[in-house]
Amino acid sequence: MFGPLDQVSAAAGDPLPAGVELVDAQDFIANDEEAARAVRARPEASIVVAAEAVASGRAAALVSAGSTGAALAASLLRIKRIPGVYRPAVAAQLPLPGRQVLLLDVGANTEVRPEHLVQFAYMGAAFCEGVLGVERPEVGLLSVGEEQGKGTPEIVAAYEQLAGASSINFVGNIEGDGVTAGGADVVVTGGFAGNIALKTMEGTFRAVTGAIRDRISSGTASKLGGLLIRSRMRGLRAQLDPETVGGAYLLGLRSPVVICHGSSSRRAIANAIALAERGVTENVVGAIEQSLQSAGVVRGGGSATSDSATRPSVLADSVEVH
Amino acid sequence: MFGPLDQVSAAAGDPLPAGVELVDAQDFIANDEEAARAVRARPEASIVVAAEAVASGRAAALVSAGSTGAALAASLLRIKRIPGVYRPAVAAQLPLPGRQVLLLDVGANTEVRPEHLVQFAYMGAAFCEGVLGVERPEVGLLSVGEEQGKGTPEIVAAYEQLAGASSINFVGNIEGDGVTAGGADVVVTGGFAGNIALKTMEGTFRAVTGAIRDRISSGTASKLGGLLIRSRMRGLRAQLDPETVGGAYLLGLRSPVVICHGSSSRRAIANAIALAERGVTENVVGAIEQSLQSAGVVRGGGSATSDSATRPSVLADSVEVH
Repeated sequence: MFGPLDQVSAAAGDPLPAGVELVDAQDFIANDEEAARAVRARPEASIVVAAEAVASGRAAALVSAGSTGAALAASLLRIKRIPGVYRPAVAAQLPLPGRQVLLLDVGANTEVRPEHLVQFAYMGAAFCEGVLGVERPEVGLLSVGEEQGKGTPEIVAAYEQLAGASSINFVGNIEGDGVTAGGADVVVTGGFAGNIALKTMEGTFRAVTGAIRDRISSGTASKLGGLLIRSRMRGLRAQLDPETVGGAYLLGLRSPVVICHGSSSRRAIANAIALAERGVTENVVGAIEQSLQSAGVVRGGGSATSDSATRPSVLADSVEVH
Repeated sequence: MFGPLDQVSAAAGDPLPAGVELVDAQDFIANDEEAARAVRARPEASIVVAAEAVASGRAAALVSAGSTGAALAASLLRIKRIPGVYRPAVAAQLPLPGRQVLLLDVGANTEVRPEHLVQFAYMGAAFCEGVLGVERPEVGLLSVGEEQGKGTPEIVAAYEQLAGASSINFVGNIEGDGVTAGGADVVVTGGFAGNIALKTMEGTFRAVTGAIRDRISSGTASKLGGLLIRSRMRGLRAQLDPETVGGAYLLGLRSPVVICHGSSSRRAIANAIALAERGVTENVVGAIEQSLQSAGVVRGGGSATSDSATRPSVLADSVEVH
């Protein structure tokens, strides 16, 4: 646990739970700061110290509930990308009834090129197989029509490349309602559309359940009905609660990184840590690296981390994903 | 009613309802055809004959439940754009509990420039005020963060222009969950993100209500509870049903055009016709034209319809919005 020692030690409890080590870091980067600049300027900030601990091998994975931009920037600069990766992507497990769906990118990259989308497809598939245990996961591209040729030029170009690949189980384009209907295990998109889809989904869920609650509580018979269905509704809410997943995965880095909501409960943080741990034990980083290599979709030159990890374009456009 | 005479006359009933006139058009354009080319090549197709009837003043508005692409192409080529309009936009009234929200564009323009988004904002506001009766409607831009500067370069540029305008009630960026929470009356976006947001919303609504139904029907007590809340749920479903609205509006043309789902019920078609009629009686076209003119956001030269209505770029990227 990295942070101001008095605060993290109070949070960790006394006696310190087994396996927990406290590391003092007095500085921290807030949500409203320009993340890339802050991370460069303040090596004593908790997120930077923590990322450095992962980079140096002192820790195996990073979990953060702070600023998404700062976590992304610190990870890029310290943990660094897997060689050959253009851009890391934020992958969210969607809280849907039925099939588990992984949506990426949901916010790290506002603008994407086709080769980014192709890498997201392989990274998402490797994560889905390794960490979520789905064999030969179905991978789709989020678009505005199922037919090949529908969507932005980037989507169309990525479709062509993925459709011709034998190393991935590509199922074509998926529309917005196809995502919620479970049309694929992994749905690939740029960070702009992905973020909008994720938040629209969360917002619609809240709006619908809120409206149902209001309707039920506005009549005597329906109030009684509401009591009778309450326990089942609670089960559904737990199933669809984003806290059950815990956090979103940052894919494409040399160690697992999980980003949590700033208002995460104990349960969400615990689940996020378990998710990060599974990434370590299942070697998701190795699986992603191997998958990109064997598919031949790596960035040329092998100097991915040195020449452009610090380009502003990689860092400038991240958003809060929660 | 335009179509093959034997079919439309069977559909219209005998005797023909008052005010209904049948126009024979034997040809029709299917969903899977390349719309722009088909519309140009087949002047006898029902959608082209109907659009021509509107263009010539024989009819006041167009309602179509056929191919969205064909309706858009026929409208562009025959009815034509309001002078100074870059691109028409498909505006959908979102079936949300509480506040009515108009989202545009939801599919006519996969790629947009800032000046398109700015026009969408004014067109949406004029429609919202004139047809939906909202005074000085709040207008927001769909993006991945509320702060100015978040989003694609097009969003950022449109934000700057709208923030400086006194003639529009601009409330800034709206995130995906802000749309469903009713953060604005009019939410402006490019057709790619808009289509994904709309369909994600519809899909999430179906997924959540389906999961609730499954849960309720899987236990004895909850089944009884389900019976007790049934009538209230029915009311909510009717409120959130896209058929209550009837169809999406095509804004920016010289006459009102409403596009319906291909599987629309009688009720949806009736509501779509009423919506189109309201556009005529409230003179939404005049309101849009005046709003764009007085805000000074018209396309220069005044030759909007002649020089580029037929450019493939305007027609090539439309999608089915339903």
